[in-house]
Amino acid sequence: MRILVANVNTTESMTEGIAASARSVASPGTEIIGLTPSFGAESCEGNFESYLAAIAVMESVVNYDGEFDAVIQAGYGEHGREGLQELLTVPVVDITEAAASTAMYVGRSYSVVTTLDRTVPLIEDRLILGGLHDRCASVRSSGLGVLELEEDPERAVAAIVAEAERAVREDRAEVIVLGCGGMAGLEAQVRERCGVPVVDGVQAAVAVAEGLVRLGLSTSKSRTYAAPRPKRITGFRLPAAG
Amino acid sequence: MRILVANVNTTESMTEGIAASARSVASPGTEIIGLTPSFGAESCEGNFESYLAAIAVMESVVNYDGEFDAVIQAGYGEHGREGLQELLTVPVVDITEAAASTAMYVGRSYSVVTTLDRTVPLIEDRLILGGLHDRCASVRSSGLGVLELEEDPERAVAAIVAEAERAVREDRAEVIVLGCGGMAGLEAQVRERCGVPVVDGVQAAVAVAEGLVRLGLSTSKSRTYAAPRPKRITGFRLPAAG
Amino acid sequence: MRILVANVNTTESMTEGIAASARSVASPGTEIIGLTPSFGAESCEGNFESYLAAIAVMESVVNYDGEFDAVIQAGYGEHGREGLQELLTVPVVDITEAAASTAMYVGRSYSVVTTLDRTVPLIEDRLILGGLHDRCASVRSSGLGVLELEEDPERAVAAIVAEAERAVREDRAEVIVLGCGGMAGLEAQVRERCGVPVVDGVQAAVAVAEGLVRLGLSTSKSRTYAAPRPKRITGFRLPAAG
Amino acid sequence: MRILVANVNTTESMTEGIAASARSVASPGTEIIGLTPSFGAESCEGNFESYLAAIAVMESVVNYDGEFDAVIQAGYGEHGREGLQELLTVPVVDITEAAASTAMYVGRSYSVVTTLDRTVPLIEDRLILGGLHDRCASVRSSGLGVLELEEDPERAVAAIVAEAERAVREDRAEVIVLGCGGMAGLEAQVRERCGVPVVDGVQAAVAVAEGLVRLGLSTSKSRTYAAPRPKRITGFRLPAAG
Amino acid sequence: MRILVANVNTTESMTEGIAASARSVASPGTEIIGLTPSFGAESCEGNFESYLAAIAVMESVVNYDGEFDAVIQAGYGEHGREGLQELLTVPVVDITEAAASTAMYVGRSYSVVTTLDRTVPLIEDRLILGGLHDRCASVRSSGLGVLELEEDPERAVAAIVAEAERAVREDRAEVIVLGCGGMAGLEAQVRERCGVPVVDGVQAAVAVAEGLVRLGLSTSKSRTYAAPRPKRITGFRLPAAG
Amino acid sequence: MRILVANVNTTESMTEGIAASARSVASPGTEIIGLTPSFGAESCEGNFESYLAAIAVMESVVNYDGEFDAVIQAGYGEHGREGLQELLTVPVVDITEAAASTAMYVGRSYSVVTTLDRTVPLIEDRLILGGLHDRCASVRSSGLGVLELEEDPERAVAAIVAEAERAVREDRAEVIVLGCGGMAGLEAQVRERCGVPVVDGVQAAVAVAEGLVRLGLSTSKSRTYAAPRPKRITGFRLPAAG
Repeated sequence: MRILVANVNTTESMTEGIAASARSVASPGTEIIGLTPSFGAESCEGNFESYLAAIAVMESVVNYDGEFDAVIQAGYGEHGREGLQELLTVPVVDITEAAASTAMYVGRSYSVVTTLDRTVPLIEDRLILGGLHDRCASVRSSGLGVLELEEDPERAVAAIVAEAERAVREDRAEVIVLGCGGMAGLEAQVRERCGVPVVDGVQAAVAVAEGLVRLGLSTSKSRTYAAPRPKRITGFRLPAAG
Repeated sequence: MRILVANVNTTESMTEGIAASARSVASPGTEIIGLTPSFGAESCEGNFESYLAAIAVMESVVNYDGEFDAVIQAGYGEHGREGLQELLTVPVVDITEAAASTAMYVGRSYSVVTTLDRTVPLIEDRLILGGLHDRCASVRSSGLGVLELEEDPERAVAAIVAEAERAVREDRAEVIVLGCGGMAGLEAQVRERCGVPVVDGVQAAVAVAEGLVRLGLSTSKSRTYAAPRPKRITGFRLPAAG
Repeated sequence: MRILVANVNTTESMTEGIAASARSVASPGTEIIGLTPSFGAESCEGNFESYLAAIAVMESVVNYDGEFDAVIQAGYGEHGREGLQELLTVPVVDITEAAASTAMYVGRSYSVVTTLDRTVPLIEDRLILGGLHDRCASVRSSGLGVLELEEDPERAVAAIVAEAERAVREDRAEVIVLGCGGMAGLEAQVRERCGVPVVDGVQAAVAVAEGLVRLGLSTSKSRTYAAPRPKRITGFRLPAAG
Repeated sequence: MRILVANVNTTESMTEGIAASARSVASPGTEIIGLTPSFGAESCEGNFESYLAAIAVMESVVNYDGEFDAVIQAGYGEHGREGLQELLTVPVVDITEAAASTAMYVGRSYSVVTTLDRTVPLIEDRLILGGLHDRCASVRSSGLGVLELEEDPERAVAAIVAEAERAVREDRAEVIVLGCGGMAGLEAQVRERCGVPVVDGVQAAVAVAEGLVRLGLSTSKSRTYAAPRPKRITGFRLPAAG
Repeated sequence: MRILVANVNTTESMTEGIAASARSVASPGTEIIGLTPSFGAESCEGNFESYLAAIAVMESVVNYDGEFDAVIQAGYGEHGREGLQELLTVPVVDITEAAASTAMYVGRSYSVVTTLDRTVPLIEDRLILGGLHDRCASVRSSGLGVLELEEDPERAVAAIVAEAERAVREDRAEVIVLGCGGMAGLEAQVRERCGVPVVDGVQAAVAVAEGLVRLGLSTSKSRTYAAPRPKRITGFRLPAAG
Repeated sequence: MRILVANVNTTESMTEGIAASARSVASPGTEIIGLTPSFGAESCEGNFESYLAAIAVMESVVNYDGEFDAVIQAGYGEHGREGLQELLTVPVVDITEAAASTAMYVGRSYSVVTTLDRTVPLIEDRLILGGLHDRCASVRSSGLGVLELEEDPERAVAAIVAEAERAVREDRAEVIVLGCGGMAGLEAQVRERCGVPVVDGVQAAVAVAEGLVRLGLSTSKSRTYAAPRPKRITGFRLPAAG
């Protein structure tokens, strides 16, 4: 099967990192295609950038030239998943939700460790709307921006581990979720130092997406995610059907 | 004071109707400026269109050439308010929230009557995230599309009244909220036939926005709505500061 | 328009302070009338005193000799708003609710800073029943009694600022609400020192009440706030209709 | 032990009925004293009357000339319990809460059948604030006023049974709570005809109050229910300590 | 009346302690019978042991040779109450719930102080399902295992008092619940040192059970707690009817 | 990898049906082992039977002679998952939760269609504790017992479809979950007739379990699911470590 992994920012190297992380857990026979949006912000750290990413991801996905079986939206705490679901029939998996639903299978409560404090509310909002917030012990920020994760991985691990330890000790988290697409690849180090399972959203999303495809499930078109009604749209490249 | 009233769709006549409705309740000395986005859908009836509107509204507002004291996002149940709040310091009022907070002052519970069934979940999501859902008795759809409201106002009133009456009788709503920017102007007729107060979102938003300006309040920049960090953005016309 | 601002305690000087604060934000053409109840406690700091105030405010309002367009109940966290709504048709605005709904327009979460610890539960109860508690980050007490606010304003500001800063830092409040009618007039000082918007309940209530009147809204009489049924009442001075 | 059972309205015959019902389940050695307030409404069917009753009950209780071990506030869905708790140290039991906590021991969910539709919101509010609402399947009104229950008991039973049956069938209630002090004495008939346990609030409150006294528990004075601070109060007869 | 008090572990001395504590508050004429399960763990400190206890308690109760009027399940935070309710018609009272519903009558919020940290989630789960969690300020662990309570009562009191004081100070608990059947007998000491009411679950359950019996209530058989359908069961000794 | 699929009842033919259904979606290389408990009820339709199953499943799993990578508890709405998690380190997947978390990826809300009305509360309890209830539109019963599903599949499909259609139409479900291990194999027929995605719990659990294993996740042992403390246990066959 082929899974599109859509980065939410325009930084190509981050797309590559995400795709590599996805491939590392994909089943044999699963092809991972990384997509970088053609517009938007070089990193998503707030609502404006996240809304822009929502549209950019939709454009990159619907204009992908080829068939695919599922889409992973690889931005943690970003807007847009519901729009993609309207535009597609194949399953759409948001890494925020995939990480949460996966974490809930291996611990009673989980904490998310993310980048900046300002992204915490976005993540909380997605978890609330996703119906996955009840068992969330906390969403904590490491204080590092998205791009700083790439620049100084060692410092990133240290900052993330520090917050993860606080989450386990003070918030009673039993699992840690890495709350940023750009944290892919750090889970082993964090797990080793915190002593609890660590879930990376991109990798969790690969497992979820493969499962949905294997079960033959596609998005319900009965109401919320029905295809958009035919109408005049300007400023958005819809393929054929647009 | 000057208030921008941002329509979420590209239909000019709807912008005019919304602005006229806003003006009908504005205080003396309040100038209402209607804005139509330069791209997007001719009507917003789902997540894809709503996400596109979020960006289109942001673009139309930040590129407005002039000063203003507050912005009203005049789409019922649409995305984007948080992004506008990041980009501006003046108050931003979403009509979904303004209608709800206003309705709660004149009745213990309110119901929203909106257009299509598929827009109900969007409205519910906004009310939940806005912390204004507890006293919402129901969100009901009249079955009419946004543009049909304009085409056949009589049928629209009939359909809206029918659902409003069900909301009062079956859901115990004590106030009815008109859940579509395009319903502006119908409130008197609905009130007369349902016997309970009727709140129009655009008009409620004018009152809320005027109040915020008069109180000298502006958006908190301490965390969630802090200005975007300086970074490379493509595909979005930001003025000067972009 | 004429708005009655009903103090909940019997301290005249506090009524005057509240009315002055209300006038400072009222629109031209809005007349503010301060009412002091003829019985009750010299300050309200608990349930017994608050229940007594509920009745005293109702008596002072229904026996007011003149017309009016709205009533503001100027006690933070006090009982009684629903009773007033039954007795009147004009809008009734509780300052606890007005402050909360206003704060929610300028920040994702707000904290209330009030007087004594024992009044915190009353405030929480009102916010819960008002459906305005979801975005409340905390209700904190400054440790000062209501009358101490008047006696030593400097100490009051210091104590309130200290709690407001804790709310911003520890509870992630993005807006501060001054949770006592007697705090009117301190908002500028608190805002300056905390760096986030500060909402005073009395002033917020003036803006809300003016808005409701301008929108032509009155209390729904369909169910919860229907006028009392005709019956024998003793011990309460109802005017004519009583 | 001696338990005061405080009626919330001024109708003596109702006080007698309530006291008789209380006596029918009291343990040997428990003395039941019925109190009728010296002012207020002849029946409580709304917020204004309920707030008045709150004060009237407090006055009747604190001026009771004698010792007592517990107080039952015998109005279903009425205000005031917290005020009584401040003024006393002996346990105060509200029949709304006693009925709910008792019902929860004999069924997974309970429904309340009350008098008029307008009293439903008051009951819901008390259950929410009492933390006893989660297992409430519904609050239904029989459409009969409080005094009509006394006038035509047969019609009352029929109307109550009809709603109780709907609650069992449609709302999945497993227990029925009689939601009015004046319904005391009807429980056997309702149980027989509905086939599920029926809980009368006054009787449940006797059992709860006796239990609290036997366990040697008194109201916590640590915070919410601490005695009122010494201050000038007018218009309320407080005994000695006033 | 006769009340069975079912210990959840196999430690006879603990059954005796629990029964003695129950007898100390029972009314004259109430006979308390302590039951020790014939299998299970010597103490219950986790889900596996608690599930085993659920079955062991059911077996010990349904095979009790004699009549009885109510059953108390004397394990704090343990599974099984619903199963007992299916097998019996007399009231079944879980001490977790009895302590909570009792505490709520004497304070606005309560905290539970239990044994090990690992039992906290079990308690929270029972309170959530029991609809008694809203007013729970916290569940705190003293760090002592169940059997250590018996071995060193002095140390137990010290550890429990320390957590109770934190609950009052930091979590704003107004009542303390002793969250372990084995803590019976410590309530006086804890109360004296914390200054707030202390509720012991076993004793509270006696009061609740006596009340239910006196009110003539039995478990609703309408749905959730209907008797098991006749079917082939192996590995569980059901009496006659099995 | 090898996955144990533990039936909760003693009916061998049902174990075979469940295992066959599991195998139909398992990846190449995944071995499915069906386990039938050595004691318990021939079908689980209530709390007593479910608690017995909890212990029986634990015994069958811990005494399984061989290695395995994950366990699926194949009873819908049954107790016991947390106990298994304490006894094992490999992932444990409850089909109630797997179906819910899977359904939430393909629709905004899901409804469960189960067997008897009396099992509805058990399912609701598991979904609430699992933090997966927010997006549950309803749990509906078909009125058929577990064993009747096998005896008359045609009637079963008809009854399930009827409830599924009501869920879609009245409760606004966008996905249907088959809420009984014994419904495995009916999903295609139900989907075809209802027009929305249908999720079978056993199959969903296979996908979830495979994903967890592939991600290298095991149960967090930090707190809730820590291994039982060493102690004296009677009446339960623990292997070696017992």
